[in-house]
Amino acid sequence: MTVHKRQMNLGAFFMIPGHHVAAWRHPESNSEELLSFDLYRKLAETAERGKFDMIFFADGYAVHDRNGVGIEQTVNIRPDPLTLLSALSVVTKNIGLVATASTTYNEPFHLARKFATIDHLSKGRAGWNVVTSSSEAEALNFSKDQHLAHQSRYERAEEFVEVAKKLWDSWEDEALLLDKKNAKFADPARVHTINHKGEWFSIKGPLNISRPVQGYPVIIQAGSSESGKELAAKTAEVIFTAWQTLGEAQHFYQDVKGRLSKYGRTEESLKIMPGVFPVIGLNEKDAKEKKRYLMDLIPEQVGVGLLSSLISYDLSPFPVDKPLPDLPDLENINGAKTRFQLVKALGERENLTIRQLYQRVAGARGHREINGTAIQIADHLQEWFEQGGADGFNIMPPYLPDGLDDFVNLVIPELQNRGLFREEYTGSTLRENLGLRRPNNLFSGVSQSTGGRK
Amino acid sequence: MTVHKRQMNLGAFFMIPGHHVAAWRHPESNSEELLSFDLYRKLAETAERGKFDMIFFADGYAVHDRNGVGIEQTVNIRPDPLTLLSALSVVTKNIGLVATASTTYNEPFHLARKFATIDHLSKGRAGWNVVTSSSEAEALNFSKDQHLAHQSRYERAEEFVEVAKKLWDSWEDEALLLDKKNAKFADPARVHTINHKGEWFSIKGPLNISRPVQGYPVIIQAGSSESGKELAAKTAEVIFTAWQTLGEAQHFYQDVKGRLSKYGRTEESLKIMPGVFPVIGLNEKDAKEKKRYLMDLIPEQVGVGLLSSLISYDLSPFPVDKPLPDLPDLENINGAKTRFQLVKALGERENLTIRQLYQRVAGARGHREINGTAIQIADHLQEWFEQGGADGFNIMPPYLPDGLDDFVNLVIPELQNRGLFREEYTGSTLRENLGLRRPNNLFSGVSQSTGGRK
Repeated sequence: MTVHKRQMNLGAFFMIPGHHVAAWRHPESNSEELLSFDLYRKLAETAERGKFDMIFFADGYAVHDRNGVGIEQTVNIRPDPLTLLSALSVVTKNIGLVATASTTYNEPFHLARKFATIDHLSKGRAGWNVVTSSSEAEALNFSKDQHLAHQSRYERAEEFVEVAKKLWDSWEDEALLLDKKNAKFADPARVHTINHKGEWFSIKGPLNISRPVQGYPVIIQAGSSESGKELAAKTAEVIFTAWQTLGEAQHFYQDVKGRLSKYGRTEESLKIMPGVFPVIGLNEKDAKEKKRYLMDLIPEQVGVGLLSSLISYDLSPFPVDKPLPDLPDLENINGAKTRFQLVKALGERENLTIRQLYQRVAGARGHREINGTAIQIADHLQEWFEQGGADGFNIMPPYLPDGLDDFVNLVIPELQNRGLFREEYTGSTLRENLGLRRPNNLFSGVSQSTGGRK
Repeated sequence: MTVHKRQMNLGAFFMIPGHHVAAWRHPESNSEELLSFDLYRKLAETAERGKFDMIFFADGYAVHDRNGVGIEQTVNIRPDPLTLLSALSVVTKNIGLVATASTTYNEPFHLARKFATIDHLSKGRAGWNVVTSSSEAEALNFSKDQHLAHQSRYERAEEFVEVAKKLWDSWEDEALLLDKKNAKFADPARVHTINHKGEWFSIKGPLNISRPVQGYPVIIQAGSSESGKELAAKTAEVIFTAWQTLGEAQHFYQDVKGRLSKYGRTEESLKIMPGVFPVIGLNEKDAKEKKRYLMDLIPEQVGVGLLSSLISYDLSPFPVDKPLPDLPDLENINGAKTRFQLVKALGERENLTIRQLYQRVAGARGHREINGTAIQIADHLQEWFEQGGADGFNIMPPYLPDGLDDFVNLVIPELQNRGLFREEYTGSTLRENLGLRRPNNLFSGVSQSTGGRK
């Protein structure tokens, strides 16, 4: 193994009991343990044994009753990821703990504090996947008649992250004095009101918890639209993204990395990690059979519903064994725009019927799917990693816990043998393991304070 | 020991590093570990060793810079309690996990889901101390110009709890089928939209996590004003309250228990637990010296600031060694009304100067303080418990971890010897240990559903 070779970063992206929409029906999946800590503990421990940089839980704030069969035939329950990650911090030591939390239906003060809490309890392992909420169903759970338009969601998201950073910085690293004798708990000159007044938020601060171990939790984003890319170039440290071909991935990689310099950032300050849905077989035939087995578990209405949801367009009136109908123009889509383009392009490029298309996306949901042996999967990852398509990958096990066990037992050792992945954790925080610097404090050197003695 | 004797319930109410405002200055307090999981783990384990019903963390959403010295001289940082309790669920087995969360600056969907998550992860040990937020400083952290008036806060709180219960009930206990073969994950007839439309919230549901193990987390309240008592009689299962004398406690006990029947509730369905701040000595002189030592640690400005905050009235312009000035009428107080009355009455009853009064309340903040030996403390608790003043107590250690160790090592065995407290946990959930029934589901037997097949 070459020690100084560039190495990839890996995230373990968990949907429970697996990314495939029919994973819960798989005989090996732990559907009975969906809300049991034992399952999550086992997954986290396995990921840490595999030296993953981080475990990651996506999230949403509504039940999706796709075509009226979502509740009956798909998994619509999941623990709150921030609450879950806090518990998992106790049974892990090195792995990063990343949760999705939406800027659309949360308050900056609460989120900043919760992430700071996890960062302190875990000694510097928190990460925040910043998303906007785009479903009508979510709006209706938060006393809103409709969800925010795409542009407004991103404006609010940008301001939200800005406020969160100010709140994390409101206690400087040196603010705590803990001087019992002289009754000086903290230095008021290093504790700051933020007095933020923006279009979306008006927040005085300071936060009521001191600065996170990492300065900020690692900031992650997943949007790949024009607004998403610009927001990521400005604020993200990791991008989760979805591409089908190396060409698309390279184009995106260059595009986003090229936007960094105008914000005074280096290319190393942002890690691009496409999602990968690996179906791992002992040989190619075994992998194909595993995939076929999963495909056959998808009820037709679930498949059509899922596809409709991915492209924000109801396909249920159309014949399932015909190609996609004419779809609206991109500008009339108020859902996830990049995913719409990607799925539409995949259907057209390969001339797939609705059924074939939903079978293709029912696992990876637009992310890249790789079927094969551990060596083949390692080959594919290496190619993208070395050809300028990725800094690492977000691994999406089709069903759990087996899909993760297979990756850790079979693919990780292959990557390690090639010197492409760490054999031991080298940093003590998520930020260090990812090779990201600890951010400076916005207030450092600023004399303004909350007051101190008057 | 008499087995069937009525026994008291005990909560361990934690402020870190202790309830006394100067606890952080105490040589034995762990001020360096305020955000370290190891400290909280140790406290939770000690409380569980003592067979406490629950551990409880209060909360607030702002830094309090009392008189300009709060940041310098008091503890203004604390972990988010829900996040912390989730981590503590991993290192405990029997003890209840109770967090304060405000109905004023939260969303019912988020809170219902977070408490449901902790209840699932802990197998039925979650409790929610429902509060309203009454400080201007908190309003300014949530894009509000001013905090809600007292009456509006309580109206919102009542609707908030109502919505949360609907959300917890939105998945009936029997909703999950997990039938892999027939592709029936859940029974849509047992999953319900709630379609709540009220004055404060408009929420469709269902929640995206199934019904908590306990049905609902145990619902706790602390308000003792007229609105608070009525809300508690309608919705609370435990009341945390603060009284100085047995007479006051008995009056409150009878008042609140007397309100239950109009809501169809029994007296056993609501547990009244006054706070107790115990200063435990090996003998009376030792206890007095411990108290004196703590009193001497209070900086004058901190004491005056704390007292001002308790009565929602600024006392800093007044001479500290004179009695309280004339205070506004109760109806002009838009803070915690009951606490105002209690503190004012204490000052007048004992003709205390401002300094004497802040020294009296700087630990217990209006709760009952008992100084003495373990036997004397047990005597006092027994008296209130047997004389109709309390169903149990919320124990507020002056400084940590010693204040908790002393209670567990000295007072609990004395209570156990008298048959007044359990020697082992008897239930598997917080609800069972408190002797509270599991609530019925609002939707049980109702045929309306989210849809199912259309």
